[in-house]
Amino acid sequence: MLNIGIIGAGRIGKVHLESISYHVKNATVKAVADPFMNDETKAFTEGFGVTKIYTDYKKILADDEIDAVLVCSSTDTHASISVEAIEAGKHVFCEKPVDHSIAKIQAVADALAAHPGIKFQVGFNRRFDHNFAAIRKAYDEGKIGEAHILKITSRDPEPPNPAYIKVSGGIFLDMTIHDFDMACFLTNSDVEEVYVNSAVLVDPAIGEQGDVDTAIITMKMANGALAVIDNSRRAAYGYDQRAELFGSKGMVATANDTLSSAVVSDENGVTGEKPLFFFLERYMGSFSEEMRQFVAACENDTDVPVGIHAGMQSVKIGLAAKKSVAEHRPVALSEIM
Amino acid sequence: MLNIGIIGAGRIGKVHLESISYHVKNATVKAVADPFMNDETKAFTEGFGVTKIYTDYKKILADDEIDAVLVCSSTDTHASISVEAIEAGKHVFCEKPVDHSIAKIQAVADALAAHPGIKFQVGFNRRFDHNFAAIRKAYDEGKIGEAHILKITSRDPEPPNPAYIKVSGGIFLDMTIHDFDMACFLTNSDVEEVYVNSAVLVDPAIGEQGDVDTAIITMKMANGALAVIDNSRRAAYGYDQRAELFGSKGMVATANDTLSSAVVSDENGVTGEKPLFFFLERYMGSFSEEMRQFVAACENDTDVPVGIHAGMQSVKIGLAAKKSVAEHRPVALSEIM
Amino acid sequence: MLNIGIIGAGRIGKVHLESISYHVKNATVKAVADPFMNDETKAFTEGFGVTKIYTDYKKILADDEIDAVLVCSSTDTHASISVEAIEAGKHVFCEKPVDHSIAKIQAVADALAAHPGIKFQVGFNRRFDHNFAAIRKAYDEGKIGEAHILKITSRDPEPPNPAYIKVSGGIFLDMTIHDFDMACFLTNSDVEEVYVNSAVLVDPAIGEQGDVDTAIITMKMANGALAVIDNSRRAAYGYDQRAELFGSKGMVATANDTLSSAVVSDENGVTGEKPLFFFLERYMGSFSEEMRQFVAACENDTDVPVGIHAGMQSVKIGLAAKKSVAEHRPVALSEIM
Amino acid sequence: MLNIGIIGAGRIGKVHLESISYHVKNATVKAVADPFMNDETKAFTEGFGVTKIYTDYKKILADDEIDAVLVCSSTDTHASISVEAIEAGKHVFCEKPVDHSIAKIQAVADALAAHPGIKFQVGFNRRFDHNFAAIRKAYDEGKIGEAHILKITSRDPEPPNPAYIKVSGGIFLDMTIHDFDMACFLTNSDVEEVYVNSAVLVDPAIGEQGDVDTAIITMKMANGALAVIDNSRRAAYGYDQRAELFGSKGMVATANDTLSSAVVSDENGVTGEKPLFFFLERYMGSFSEEMRQFVAACENDTDVPVGIHAGMQSVKIGLAAKKSVAEHRPVALSEIM
Repeated sequence: MLNIGIIGAGRIGKVHLESISYHVKNATVKAVADPFMNDETKAFTEGFGVTKIYTDYKKILADDEIDAVLVCSSTDTHASISVEAIEAGKHVFCEKPVDHSIAKIQAVADALAAHPGIKFQVGFNRRFDHNFAAIRKAYDEGKIGEAHILKITSRDPEPPNPAYIKVSGGIFLDMTIHDFDMACFLTNSDVEEVYVNSAVLVDPAIGEQGDVDTAIITMKMANGALAVIDNSRRAAYGYDQRAELFGSKGMVATANDTLSSAVVSDENGVTGEKPLFFFLERYMGSFSEEMRQFVAACENDTDVPVGIHAGMQSVKIGLAAKKSVAEHRPVALSEIM
Repeated sequence: MLNIGIIGAGRIGKVHLESISYHVKNATVKAVADPFMNDETKAFTEGFGVTKIYTDYKKILADDEIDAVLVCSSTDTHASISVEAIEAGKHVFCEKPVDHSIAKIQAVADALAAHPGIKFQVGFNRRFDHNFAAIRKAYDEGKIGEAHILKITSRDPEPPNPAYIKVSGGIFLDMTIHDFDMACFLTNSDVEEVYVNSAVLVDPAIGEQGDVDTAIITMKMANGALAVIDNSRRAAYGYDQRAELFGSKGMVATANDTLSSAVVSDENGVTGEKPLFFFLERYMGSFSEEMRQFVAACENDTDVPVGIHAGMQSVKIGLAAKKSVAEHRPVALSEIM
Repeated sequence: MLNIGIIGAGRIGKVHLESISYHVKNATVKAVADPFMNDETKAFTEGFGVTKIYTDYKKILADDEIDAVLVCSSTDTHASISVEAIEAGKHVFCEKPVDHSIAKIQAVADALAAHPGIKFQVGFNRRFDHNFAAIRKAYDEGKIGEAHILKITSRDPEPPNPAYIKVSGGIFLDMTIHDFDMACFLTNSDVEEVYVNSAVLVDPAIGEQGDVDTAIITMKMANGALAVIDNSRRAAYGYDQRAELFGSKGMVATANDTLSSAVVSDENGVTGEKPLFFFLERYMGSFSEEMRQFVAACENDTDVPVGIHAGMQSVKIGLAAKKSVAEHRPVALSEIM
Repeated sequence: MLNIGIIGAGRIGKVHLESISYHVKNATVKAVADPFMNDETKAFTEGFGVTKIYTDYKKILADDEIDAVLVCSSTDTHASISVEAIEAGKHVFCEKPVDHSIAKIQAVADALAAHPGIKFQVGFNRRFDHNFAAIRKAYDEGKIGEAHILKITSRDPEPPNPAYIKVSGGIFLDMTIHDFDMACFLTNSDVEEVYVNSAVLVDPAIGEQGDVDTAIITMKMANGALAVIDNSRRAAYGYDQRAELFGSKGMVATANDTLSSAVVSDENGVTGEKPLFFFLERYMGSFSEEMRQFVAACENDTDVPVGIHAGMQSVKIGLAAKKSVAEHRPVALSEIM
């Protein structure tokens, strides 16, 4: 049984609390800390039998009963808390992105190198989605041969509010970072070069923050494949999350998930349901699965499925994308340091 | 080159004229006869280079230049004209149904037996539809093993006018007859027994004519398979023509055809096009193909793809279906004589 | 909080135990009884924190702490245990079928009439499936107008072993009973008449037990709609569970569920996944949902979603279907007493 | 009636001859010229009733009976023959690309400016494909709002032979040129900037010719939309021709066409047909339709649907794409002169 402390009880911290309680065997959440702990969150937390509820996360790090922590705090604290936790001998599950700074991610990597027994997993939950996992499985089984072209469509149902945009690090580090990791996952390869074609088409307020809301990102993968991601901050029909991997022997592609397969045929046409609304609906299963695999890695002392390398790659790609927009040219990942 | 005379220049006669002219090599329409020949039809016919235009079909039968005739006249004259044509030494393509009377169909069969060199094909064009032909091909190739369950959905976009209903012979001899032939074609088997579950749900005027407009017909096939057809005289979304054949190794199923594959995703859902409107749109390709195969059979002295046996079976099944409704019980085909 | 006792710890009893523990708030399983309780089942049960583990279900009925029982014992004991439980003042969730005998189901109905405060729900879980619920929702919202034709496809991936066939009551009371209930649910109507077209095509051993393994059942619904169910005990491609409801304004149809939406295109074609393997995979969500609604009805003293009428109807239809096969004719439900 | 002369009797010239004869009313092919006219081509041509068969196309230009010519000769002669034909007072249908040289296309444009009564249409047949036309129609009808992201997938079933690659002008002027025109057509906009991410992944022999065989091309459209095309010279599953247009109100997308809708479900999965093999199968309907519209424009003195501007744009985009590969940077269309 793995005893877990959750640091940060915002939306994603709550998702993990619920998910572990209902869907993960061999793990129990024993403690939750949040600097803004309020009555509502406290009640929610207690509802899952958690008794150690703090405002100061250091109490969790100091607790010998705790084996592992989930770092679900604000992005700017991910790296430093992770380092502290590693040094305190706790396994760490860290939400994405690890940080916006390469140096700070490197500090985490250094801490891990110094504590080889510690497990560190990054919260790229989409790797555990049934559809994307099926693409990778087909690729691993050789069904499509060598990878030639990867296409990822990733569009949100609605943009975040402008205040969030400001602190988000921009679309590439906030939203596309999932797709960057997915590109690496689906092709089983790192990225070598990035070029971005982008625009502000959804909301001028986003442009006023210095960000873009619509983008086509092309990449050269280290294994020779070409990749393209298309992003929009607003798809009128909902959360659009698809991918296709094309190779020497064929193609594997996935569609969106829907609440049901019901299709109505009437005088207006043949109409199926829209995609599941947003990430909590679409990826709920993947949140459980990533946690099950993290717990299993800690319990069995095996490799985590998404380590610090993936955390570093995705941020480097995001920074390269920002540089590509700024300098209007393809940017090699080796330029990002 | 096969020289063809068309007897009956109504809608289906015109379809064949156009189809042969555009899509069938090795055949030319030389003569067209219709008792109600008018200026419009005459102009249409001349537009395809036909010079022999008559009101009396007997002129076609007497014409030594004509090798084959298409019997596209009213149903009650199909059988007698077919017999005359056979006796005049012409190959015959006869529209469905051959007749509503078993005795009159038998007369055609007898005439054919007496003139073994004559080709006789029944106009069950749907056998040549790309979708239904693909089901039969999969079955013939053994992809689904032994046939267990056949399902045919056949729904019209709108009912015929009540006046037509009166002379149509009823839904089973008018509309379902195509599906009865399709059941035999797709399972490659005759029918042994029929039971009908029917109702008047579309239009009370149809019920007042003594007919039904909605029906589920189940059949036992001679090869052991079970079959079911569902019919409606009115599908709000258009012409619904699907089939699935389920067997010991799997299933093959087809969908409706549409004008394009375009799908619009918006806040209302994910909407594709309705089926092609009606039989002229959906089955246009099959009208050409049945004619090509008829011409080939005449030219090469090979078997026609749909002979008098199919013409007889389909009518027997239709009469059994009517008897099932009247007597509220399953009816064996052997009862129909 | 509803305290639950489970009577019968076979496969379905275990499904409910797990489902309530993980997915149903406001309910706790406090006791489990099974005459064949063994170490493995005991360990499984204890794993969910259940401390009262018995061989005699009467201990559950006598336990004042228990508010409701799930009757998951063998079919021949459903009715009598249900009556006992009702008389002991427990709410009852009873697995399907309630019994094979109309008289014994009537005894349950009588007990309920005598204890009006008691909730009684029948385990027709498929009503809570996301796909079938979406059909009913579309119908209730008027999207397809008046119901004209209902089609249900229900095929198992593999037949039960011959020993089970013997005690199962036959395909109609064992397998089709779910489809009979679904027909009533989807059309929101009772059944008036049944006709069965059936055969032994999957396994002669099934025929030797006096049962059939392939069937097409047509029904007249009380609201005028026609319905058809097609069954097979073995679909090579897996568990086939689809329905379509056709009406005056259009049609709503559902497809099978799959593990993922991944489609591989290669030189052999464009291939998607097979349906989810069997009922535990396909209907897992519906087991949770039926239990949530049962618990809510007990807690809030509201109507259960599937009551004794549905339990009675489905068995009457099953008995009518058996009679239709035996007597080779359509059978009115009013004949079944 | 429009009298047509075909210049160049290779594959595409023959397609037009057959297409006009079978599917285009109000037009007749009167003459065919080809410098390599042989017995086979002569027989094929005569089979359609053409009596004027030449090796020298100038005989067609000098023939007063001829109203319009189809320029189906080798690409390097398209522009000069077009100018000659315009000056001879013939309407011109010119195959794509008009030329590889901007100056030579400009010469055609100049000739047209000098002969305002002459119709000139470029052979971008895909604009008339039922699927792509449906995307544009949905866009024109406002169903997707403002265009934000256009995605075109265009993959051939097999690469041309290396000898052809050498004279083809490279993948962008030979294969992608259709997609460039499609991007302009579907967004109803010109292109402003092009960036290419490309590789040799299919066949090293293509790389040895200085060409690429796999590419992702991103573009900025003049109306603000972003566009991306992905190309491969070899898709193992066949000719992959899809597009999706995403906008402020939704998305419209199309799938590949297949020979039938038949889907086989068996123990291996649920398998539909591969796309239609190659452009002659997929786009046959569009060859007829482009010709019908060309004939209509000539007959009615209305605008042609694809004029010299489209011919110029597509080649400029192709040249910008080549420059982008050579210089490894985004290239503005204004740089191409």
